[in-house]
Amino acid sequence: MNVEPQSLEALIGEFANLPGIGRKTARRLAYHILTRPKEEVAQFASALENASEKVHACPRCFSFTDQDICPICADRIDAHALCVVEKSSDILPFERSGIFKGAYFVLGGVISPLDGIGPEQLHLPLLIKRVKEENIEELVLALGSSPEADSTALMIDRMLDGVNVKRTRLARGIPMGSDLEFVDEITMLRAFEGRVSL
Amino acid sequence: MNVEPQSLEALIGEFANLPGIGRKTARRLAYHILTRPKEEVAQFASALENASEKVHACPRCFSFTDQDICPICADRIDAHALCVVEKSSDILPFERSGIFKGAYFVLGGVISPLDGIGPEQLHLPLLIKRVKEENIEELVLALGSSPEADSTALMIDRMLDGVNVKRTRLARGIPMGSDLEFVDEITMLRAFEGRVSL
Repeated sequence: MNVEPQSLEALIGEFANLPGIGRKTARRLAYHILTRPKEEVAQFASALENASEKVHACPRCFSFTDQDICPICADRIDAHALCVVEKSSDILPFERSGIFKGAYFVLGGVISPLDGIGPEQLHLPLLIKRVKEENIEELVLALGSSPEADSTALMIDRMLDGVNVKRTRLARGIPMGSDLEFVDEITMLRAFEGRVSL
Repeated sequence: MNVEPQSLEALIGEFANLPGIGRKTARRLAYHILTRPKEEVAQFASALENASEKVHACPRCFSFTDQDICPICADRIDAHALCVVEKSSDILPFERSGIFKGAYFVLGGVISPLDGIGPEQLHLPLLIKRVKEENIEELVLALGSSPEADSTALMIDRMLDGVNVKRTRLARGIPMGSDLEFVDEITMLRAFEGRVSL
C-alpha cells in the first residue's frame, strides 16, 4: 500500500531535484521537515522565496547580490586588477584569504562545445569590452583546472591580442597540508614543472 | 569583504539546519537555488509549507498522513496483528515487501534515559491501552537494533505481562547480498546464534 501522503511525495520530489541529493536523502529530509514546527518550516520556505526574489546578478561583475551593484564593485570601482572566475561562489576563497584587492568578473562558466556552451553563452564579450574600455592593468584568470577552463583562458588571452594588459593565472602545485603519497599524477606533474629554486 | 547577500546567508543557514547537511553542502545548495527560475523556487517553498500544514500524525497509529485517519488504519481496522515501529518512515519497507497485512503503531522513538526520553515521551501508554482493548493476537516489535531499542522492546513485553498477546521481533542475521567478509561482529554473532537446520 502506498502510505505516503501526496504532499509528502511532492516534497520528496523537490528535495530530490537538488544537486547531489538522491532519492533516499530526499526522503530523509522530507520526513525531517514533518517533525519540525510549522513556523520553522514557514521560515525555511520564506528564506527560499526571499533569496530567489532579492538576489540577482550584479550588472558590472555578474556575482550574486541584493544591491543595485555588488559591494565589491561599489568599493573597488577604480581597481586596476580584475579576477575572472567561473561562478559567483568562486569569489569566496579569494575574499577569505584577503590576498586580492581588485575587482572580480563572473564569466558564468567555461567554453564547452559538447555542452553547447560557446562564448555567447558566457559573459565573455562583456569581459573583453570592459578590459578594453577600463584601465585594467592585470587580468587574473582564475578559472578551475579542467581542460575546458584551460582553453577558455587561452581564448581570452587571444581575444586580448594587442591590448596592453598583463594576464596571469593561479599557480598550480601541491595544496597545503596534503600528503605527497596521495597527490594525483597531473598535480604532481604541474608541481614538478613549476618547481622553484630555494 | 563579506560578499554574500544577507538573504543568501539566511538560506545557507536554513539548509545547514537540515540533518546530515554541513555548511559547505548548504552553501552549494543555496547557490544552486539562486540559479533556478523564481517559479521553480516558489514551487519548492510551497511544497514545504503544504507538507508541513497538511501532514499530521494519524490519531490511531501516529504515522504521517493527510487524512483524518491514515489509509492503512482505515483499510485494516480489524487487523489482529500490530507492528510497532520507531518512526513513520519505518513502515515503508514493510509495505514495499508486502509481507505484513496487519496494522502499524508508531512509537515515536525508543526509551533513552540519557536523552531524557522515558515512556511518557513516547506513545507507549497508548500502545498498551490499545493492545489490551482491541483484539490483537500478535504484536511484532520492529524497533531498530540499538541497545535502547532492545530495552524498549523488553519494557513493552513486561508491561503486557498477563495479557494474552503473542510478541515477536524481526529475525537478525546476514542481510541478503552482503559479502560475509564485511559483516560486522555483532551481526555475525546474532546470525550464528540464530542459525537454523537445513
